[in-house]
Amino acid sequence: MQGEILFLCVTVFTAGFAIAIGVIFPALGQGKACSKALEGIARQPEATGPISRTLFVGLALLESLAIYVLVVSLILLFANPLLKYVFK
Amino acid sequence: MQGEILFLCVTVFTAGFAIAIGVIFPALGQGKACSKALEGIARQPEATGPISRTLFVGLALLESLAIYVLVVSLILLFANPLLKYVFK
Amino acid sequence: MQGEILFLCVTVFTAGFAIAIGVIFPALGQGKACSKALEGIARQPEATGPISRTLFVGLALLESLAIYVLVVSLILLFANPLLKYVFK
Amino acid sequence: MQGEILFLCVTVFTAGFAIAIGVIFPALGQGKACSKALEGIARQPEATGPISRTLFVGLALLESLAIYVLVVSLILLFANPLLKYVFK
Amino acid sequence: MQGEILFLCVTVFTAGFAIAIGVIFPALGQGKACSKALEGIARQPEATGPISRTLFVGLALLESLAIYVLVVSLILLFANPLLKYVFK
Repeated sequence: MQGEILFLCVTVFTAGFAIAIGVIFPALGQGKACSKALEGIARQPEATGPISRTLFVGLALLESLAIYVLVVSLILLFANPLLKYVFK
Repeated sequence: MQGEILFLCVTVFTAGFAIAIGVIFPALGQGKACSKALEGIARQPEATGPISRTLFVGLALLESLAIYVLVVSLILLFANPLLKYVFK
Repeated sequence: MQGEILFLCVTVFTAGFAIAIGVIFPALGQGKACSKALEGIARQPEATGPISRTLFVGLALLESLAIYVLVVSLILLFANPLLKYVFK
Repeated sequence: MQGEILFLCVTVFTAGFAIAIGVIFPALGQGKACSKALEGIARQPEATGPISRTLFVGLALLESLAIYVLVVSLILLFANPLLKYVFK
Repeated sequence: MQGEILFLCVTVFTAGFAIAIGVIFPALGQGKACSKALEGIARQPEATGPISRTLFVGLALLESLAIYVLVVSLILLFANPLLKYVFK
C-alpha cells in the first residue's frame, strides 16, 4: 500500500504547488500592464478607448497562461489518467 | 495506517502553502495597479471615470488568479477525489 | 510494484511543474510587451493601429511558447508512449 | 526491472523540464524585441513598415530556438532510439 | 545490466538538457541584437537597409550556435558512436 500512498502524495503536492507557482508571473505581468495603462489614461484621458482595448487583449492572454496551469492541476486531481495504473 | 497519515499531512501542507504562495503575486500586482490609479486620479481628477473602470477590470482579473489557487486548496481539503483511494 | 509507482510519480511531478515553470517567462514577456504598447499608445494615440497589430503578433508568438509546454504536459499525462513499456 | 524504470523516469523528467527550461529565454528575447519595436513605432509611426518586418524575422528565429527544444522533447517521448537497447 | 542502463540514462538526460541550456544564450543574444536594431531603425528610418542586413547576418550566426547544440543532441540520440562499446 505504501507505493500507492506515495503516488497520491506526489499528485496532491504537484497539483497544489503547480497552480501556486503558475499564477506568480501572470500576476506580475497583469499588474505591470495594468499600471502602465492607468498611467497612460491619466496622461491622455482621450486615449482611453484604444488603451483599454489593448490592455484587455493583453490581460486575456496572460489570464490564459494561468488557466493552462489550472487545467493541468484539475486534471491531476479529477481525471488523472495514471490512477488506473496504480489501482488496478 | 502510517501511509494514510502521510497522505493527509501532505494534503494539509499543500493546501495551506499553495494558497499562501498563490496570493503573494496577485497582491503585488493589485497593489501596483491600485497605486498607479490613485497617482493618476491625483494628477488628473477629471479622468477618474476611465481610470477607475480600467482599474476594476485589472483588479478583477488579478483577483481571479488568486481564486484559482483558492479553488484548488478547497478542493484538496473538502472534495479531494484521491481520498477514496486512500481510505477504501 | 514500487518501480512502476516511481515512474508514475515522476510523470505527475514533471507534468505539473513543467507547465508551472513554462508559463513564467511567456508571462513576463507578454507583460513587458503589453506595458510598452500601452505606453506607446498613451504617447501617440494616432499610432494605435500599427502598435496593436505589432503587439498582437508578439503576444501570439509568446503564447505559442507556453502552448508547447502545455502540449508536452498533456502528452505526459494522457498519451505517454512510455507507459506501455512499464505496464506490459 | 528497476533499471528500465529508472531509464523511463529519466526520460520523462528530461522531456518535461527540457521544454519548460527551453522556452524561458526565447520568451525573454521575444518580449524584449517586441517591447523595443513598440517603443520605436510609438516614437516614429512612419517607420512601422521596416520595424515590423525586422521584428518578425527576429521573432521567427527566436521561435525556432524553442521549436528545437520541443523537437528533442518529442523525440525523447515518441521516437527514443535508445529504448530498443533497454527493452531488447 | 545496471551499467548499460546508467549509460542510457545519462545520454537521455544530457541530450535533453543540453539543447534546453544551449538555446539560452543564443536567445538572449538574438533578443538583444534585435532590440538594438529596432531602436536604430526607429531613430534613423533611412538606415533600414544596412541595419537589417547587418542584423540578419548576426541572427544567422547566433542561430547557428543553437543548431550546433541541436546537432550534438540528435547525434547523442540517433547516432551515438559510444553505444557499440556499451552493447558489444
